[in-house]
Amino acid sequence: MDQLACLFCQKSHPLDVHNPFCPDCNEPMLVYRSWKKAPSRTASGPILERYKGFLPLRKPDPALSLGEGGTPLLRLNRLAKELGLPETFAKNETANPTASFKDRGTAVAVQKAVELGVRRIGTVSTGNMAGSTAAYAAKAGLPAAVLVKEDTNAAKITAAAVFGSAVIKVRGDYAALFRKSFELGRSRGIYFMNSVDPFRIEGYKTAGFEIFEDLGAGAFQGPRRVHILVPVSAGGHLLGLMQAFLDLKAAGWLGSYPFFIGVQASGCAPIAAAFDRGGDAVRRFPRPRTIAHAISNPFPPGGNLVLRFLRRYGGSMTTVDDAEILEAQARLAAREGLFCDPAAATPLAALTALVRQGQIGPRARVVLVLTGSGLKTIEDVDPGRLDIRESDLEGLDRALA
Amino acid sequence: MDQLACLFCQKSHPLDVHNPFCPDCNEPMLVYRSWKKAPSRTASGPILERYKGFLPLRKPDPALSLGEGGTPLLRLNRLAKELGLPETFAKNETANPTASFKDRGTAVAVQKAVELGVRRIGTVSTGNMAGSTAAYAAKAGLPAAVLVKEDTNAAKITAAAVFGSAVIKVRGDYAALFRKSFELGRSRGIYFMNSVDPFRIEGYKTAGFEIFEDLGAGAFQGPRRVHILVPVSAGGHLLGLMQAFLDLKAAGWLGSYPFFIGVQASGCAPIAAAFDRGGDAVRRFPRPRTIAHAISNPFPPGGNLVLRFLRRYGGSMTTVDDAEILEAQARLAAREGLFCDPAAATPLAALTALVRQGQIGPRARVVLVLTGSGLKTIEDVDPGRLDIRESDLEGLDRALA
Repeated sequence: MDQLACLFCQKSHPLDVHNPFCPDCNEPMLVYRSWKKAPSRTASGPILERYKGFLPLRKPDPALSLGEGGTPLLRLNRLAKELGLPETFAKNETANPTASFKDRGTAVAVQKAVELGVRRIGTVSTGNMAGSTAAYAAKAGLPAAVLVKEDTNAAKITAAAVFGSAVIKVRGDYAALFRKSFELGRSRGIYFMNSVDPFRIEGYKTAGFEIFEDLGAGAFQGPRRVHILVPVSAGGHLLGLMQAFLDLKAAGWLGSYPFFIGVQASGCAPIAAAFDRGGDAVRRFPRPRTIAHAISNPFPPGGNLVLRFLRRYGGSMTTVDDAEILEAQARLAAREGLFCDPAAATPLAALTALVRQGQIGPRARVVLVLTGSGLKTIEDVDPGRLDIRESDLEGLDRALA
Repeated sequence: MDQLACLFCQKSHPLDVHNPFCPDCNEPMLVYRSWKKAPSRTASGPILERYKGFLPLRKPDPALSLGEGGTPLLRLNRLAKELGLPETFAKNETANPTASFKDRGTAVAVQKAVELGVRRIGTVSTGNMAGSTAAYAAKAGLPAAVLVKEDTNAAKITAAAVFGSAVIKVRGDYAALFRKSFELGRSRGIYFMNSVDPFRIEGYKTAGFEIFEDLGAGAFQGPRRVHILVPVSAGGHLLGLMQAFLDLKAAGWLGSYPFFIGVQASGCAPIAAAFDRGGDAVRRFPRPRTIAHAISNPFPPGGNLVLRFLRRYGGSMTTVDDAEILEAQARLAAREGLFCDPAAATPLAALTALVRQGQIGPRARVVLVLTGSGLKTIEDVDPGRLDIRESDLEGLDRALA
């Protein structure tokens, strides 16, 4: 029987897929880590196979995989020079099967669903998780109920509905929808694998394992501390990455624990606001408004747990505004050939500000996590930054000048 | 000095980046393979490193890489069952950095450009190659001139221009533009790495090497012949894949050479038409019209060379219509969780027809090459196949029924 653990109550509870929150304190729970001695890992093969001892699946099933993970860690030479940070990297999560980091979490959650004999799955999403869940449901042959915010853009809706699942645009408060989904899931037998689902969080760990492998264990020793910058919405992704390094630490393989920096848009920064005021409880962010839709969650269910992780293991929160975000998106593309969505550009925007403020110095080793592709938010690209010309064949020589 | 070889004249010529065609017969040339004894390859690392002995680069430069290749080969269990073909796979090239197979070719061509000291690059494209070339140009810090067909969709234009290159929409005949680009390239010092660029073709080989590794050498022995289905536009991709297996054969590692099936849309099928009539020269296809824009090239420069390869090494061409293409696109998504563009769906459409006609039987081992992502052609998804609903919170239980 799977057990979930609440870090607030210090208790564990048996898994209930229709309620991933602690029955006592209502905070999200994580999968209870049962090993004391480090499991083995292997050097080659798909990431779920290599780290299966660290993951809560009886046996990873390749028939349910879309080839998630194994994304490139790229050295950002040109930005490194501009920033004066020689060791700057990007983890390009847009190379996942549905073009976002969500696939790592969905892969594990859907495998768990199949293992548990669940017959129908669902999710509540602002967009990327919708497409990811629908894709893995299709691969597994499970029907999926995909609930999206009513203002989700048409591209993201099509990119989910194409997988054959019903996509429902829901009017009304997103936090209320999030809660209601679990209630409907219980009555209708649908496993809603939402943002802070504990198995999703386990899946997100795999990106942490890869960053550790790609930088090499030596990078986590010595004076250059590894800084990992991650966009934060509900909090599940950051929790998963932090948990990965806790696992590596528990296994005895990690030198210094990395310094995590969660990034939010200043137009929707509930966790950063709580971090700044030294609080331990996130409050609903009033009137959220940012171009970074993928991280526009005004009342994130994992917020309090993120605050606790950052305080306990070292880390911080920061914010960037829409102008900085668009500038960073354009710069990642023009300098490094990486086209990500506005949310995924927030780590570079934050890094730029932190370097300017002297909070990150040239001896840091930095990893920006690029969470999602720009291809699903084409309409958010600032047209004023694009050089698009027209010509006929005769005028082409002049147009090239 | 790099040498190119013409398979028609059986002659080699020194490289001229401003004219990849044979000065004698005007057919596209390939990179001259200088090794007699197989180079070594290594088991791990990026694909350009692992097979560097097979590639025309002095030394692959990781600083110019976006992490191309290493895409998943997925077993298509659900489609396999429907088709009655137990051994059916997809090579998911949409997991490349700019979401299409083009990145493999661009990576090698751009590295060659840097090796040669070229200061400016360019391409002529219907869309995917535009984004790919612009991205690698950005990574290399080279300015790029990206020339696209005037009817290229807005998403693909933005997805290229975002990388900071000038994108020029050119009115007029595409074949004329293709030829003119080399002329302007010579006068302005721009290396136009177009569709049949010999270094691009070398880059496309890497997908063949990966298919060989992923299926395993044993899959190319015994009675189950490997069939590889590939969408064909200008011809460069198919030539690269075929060349990869010629290299593997020459190295002594390959059992049976795979059977290649080039797929074109019936609305633009110049190479398939020439193949059917037993000709050895492609003619311009009149009034091209298909939803598979990425393979809508009415007068493909590599066409004659493709015909020669297919006849010499074994293979064929086939066509599918737009209804079959849209059906295959929807089926790949709904059954296997793979969202590709219409062009990339043509292999499944072709396979479905060939199985129905008894031309491919249950003992075949089949690889469909999924060339590009559906995210750049969202508007081509058939809305009639999507189940998109609306609800408020109160009506949600009913909407889920």
